[in-house]
Amino acid sequence: MVEKIIALWSRVREQRPLVHHITNMVVMNDTANITLALGGLPVMAHAKEEVAEMVGAAGVLILNPGTLTPYWIDSMLIAGKRANELGIPVVLDPVGAGATQLRTESCLRLLNELKITVVRGNSGEVGALAGMGGVVKGVESVVEVDNPADVAGALARQYKLTAVITGKRDFISDGERTICVDNGDPWLKTITGTGCMSTTVVGACAAVERDPVLAATSALVGYGIAAELAGVRASGPGTFKVALFDEVYNLTAEKIRDKARVVVL
Amino acid sequence: MVEKIIALWSRVREQRPLVHHITNMVVMNDTANITLALGGLPVMAHAKEEVAEMVGAAGVLILNPGTLTPYWIDSMLIAGKRANELGIPVVLDPVGAGATQLRTESCLRLLNELKITVVRGNSGEVGALAGMGGVVKGVESVVEVDNPADVAGALARQYKLTAVITGKRDFISDGERTICVDNGDPWLKTITGTGCMSTTVVGACAAVERDPVLAATSALVGYGIAAELAGVRASGPGTFKVALFDEVYNLTAEKIRDKARVVVL
Amino acid sequence: MVEKIIALWSRVREQRPLVHHITNMVVMNDTANITLALGGLPVMAHAKEEVAEMVGAAGVLILNPGTLTPYWIDSMLIAGKRANELGIPVVLDPVGAGATQLRTESCLRLLNELKITVVRGNSGEVGALAGMGGVVKGVESVVEVDNPADVAGALARQYKLTAVITGKRDFISDGERTICVDNGDPWLKTITGTGCMSTTVVGACAAVERDPVLAATSALVGYGIAAELAGVRASGPGTFKVALFDEVYNLTAEKIRDKARVVVL
Repeated sequence: MVEKIIALWSRVREQRPLVHHITNMVVMNDTANITLALGGLPVMAHAKEEVAEMVGAAGVLILNPGTLTPYWIDSMLIAGKRANELGIPVVLDPVGAGATQLRTESCLRLLNELKITVVRGNSGEVGALAGMGGVVKGVESVVEVDNPADVAGALARQYKLTAVITGKRDFISDGERTICVDNGDPWLKTITGTGCMSTTVVGACAAVERDPVLAATSALVGYGIAAELAGVRASGPGTFKVALFDEVYNLTAEKIRDKARVVVL
Repeated sequence: MVEKIIALWSRVREQRPLVHHITNMVVMNDTANITLALGGLPVMAHAKEEVAEMVGAAGVLILNPGTLTPYWIDSMLIAGKRANELGIPVVLDPVGAGATQLRTESCLRLLNELKITVVRGNSGEVGALAGMGGVVKGVESVVEVDNPADVAGALARQYKLTAVITGKRDFISDGERTICVDNGDPWLKTITGTGCMSTTVVGACAAVERDPVLAATSALVGYGIAAELAGVRASGPGTFKVALFDEVYNLTAEKIRDKARVVVL
Repeated sequence: MVEKIIALWSRVREQRPLVHHITNMVVMNDTANITLALGGLPVMAHAKEEVAEMVGAAGVLILNPGTLTPYWIDSMLIAGKRANELGIPVVLDPVGAGATQLRTESCLRLLNELKITVVRGNSGEVGALAGMGGVVKGVESVVEVDNPADVAGALARQYKLTAVITGKRDFISDGERTICVDNGDPWLKTITGTGCMSTTVVGACAAVERDPVLAATSALVGYGIAAELAGVRASGPGTFKVALFDEVYNLTAEKIRDKARVVVL
């Protein structure tokens, strides 16, 4: 598994996939920079007039309704349908699902009207979409679901996708296989957008790998290791964030081989 | 006073209030990160369909029309009215009031149609709202008002709120009491969003403290001390900004006790 | 030439021009901060109701359709027409021209309906506007034009403006004179918004200098030197970006005199 993860990170750097984001205004700069740091090419485009054309050049489409309005959801549907036609993977980050009706319903609409490849959210968000508990306050999971592996599996089976719940442990499930990743760092909770960035990393990996479980696992192992290394250099959230971009950029096969912590459940 | 300030910063960290921002696109990432650094939970949400529901879960609502359009002002009114019904404090940052008619009038509309708890702006912005002088160019106060304490007091009395003018000295007035804070650092002027972030800190403090004068004073003392400590580590605006997030996160009772500079006028 | 460049950077710091941006959501924070770092005053304003009034106070207008919708293009036209009436320079950054029909056509519309002073783009973007080759994927030039000096010259003559192509070498042409700048650093390619920031620097220089070729040359020499100095301090894209703001702020006459690499072709 670890050698596959290493190979996948190399493939992203070689193929430089275009990662088309329709995402929130809070994290656009960070998700663009993390895309560049891991070797992809970012683009943020949300105009209804261009999203279908833009996604046609992309390796993956990321949908993140963190500062949604109905206009943005419509754009996501246009781009998503085109991505589906072209066989381009679509990754959904259901930011704040469970916090308001608009967020929950918009995410469910995306899940129902599009073929989503991977959903990546926190415990409460994925719980809200699966109808299996958790509490979301704003965009934060303040009450965790009881059995994240089960919740991920249930959502995966319901929508025929790969569901990822990130947190202290990360759970990845396609409804049959479930994988746990224990890489990561407590500093990730102290800055905004670290979940959104993990979704971008998952997307970039999905652009170069047909198996979404392997793509998501590879993404979270590499990103988690980078966070651990950044944590060593951090004296607060400001320095942690700066170091995180450096460490994603500087991630090597050796670091992944030394530090990967993956368990197949 | 200093012990009250220390206690208030602890309360923010314990209670972790949700700070609902309807704010500008330039600073969203920074204001979200400063919220996390001081112990709150940020959310940015501006869709008319969800702002009333979102603010219902919040400890405070921040209104910042820095990149306003009429849509965003309408959302602020919807959210603000719901916050007023629920007794949730509302903090206004009148970015660029005085620079264009749209900005001045939109801020006055928010002041007239909502019950605002605190207004926090620079000298020119608050002067423009009070009709008492100052010149704003873009979002910068290029000519200061003559007597900031008087201007803050006048605005406070006119709208029955707490008015805060930040600058080299910060003035906080509810129309009766006026307090001066002398913490802060010249580097704050070299990066964008430091005013907006100070408003967020004021808001987070107002979420856990009924007296808006004490909340604003505590916020500006703590934020100003963090800025002073960040200034020591800075070799330019880039390193200053990174250090500012670290220092807000690492602020302690001891640092506040050592460095607080508050004067009751 | 070098002494003129030094004098021009001093003039920006003395005159502090207001740099009115109608720009994309990804880089707003960075372009605001680079404006402050080089001594200007940034403002981001895009509401149709205020752009004409705001640009009236500005030294330059920057148009950057990186996250365009038709609304934003309309605002750019309103602001641009007012800038033209007032004789305020207008700088266009054609982000992603060539990548989608909406982007190419919107940039051509701005070129045709406004008097643009400077266009600053990458090789593929300027090639697309000139109809002379290059390939843009997302917002990145993935195939360069063959003769950037010729392409810049052609676009300059066609629209009577100064065209700037940045890349490993930067080319500046008004259709008669062509200048090459060899300052810059490979780290610039590893973070988003470094092109947009260079446009902002060009704009700030154009606000205080009537000759757009000298303004653009000065901007790219100074910014490129700052990038070289930041590169020395970088251990990855995160630390590079932080250092870049510091080094633009700390740029001195001595550094420009030591390191400027300009060739008149």
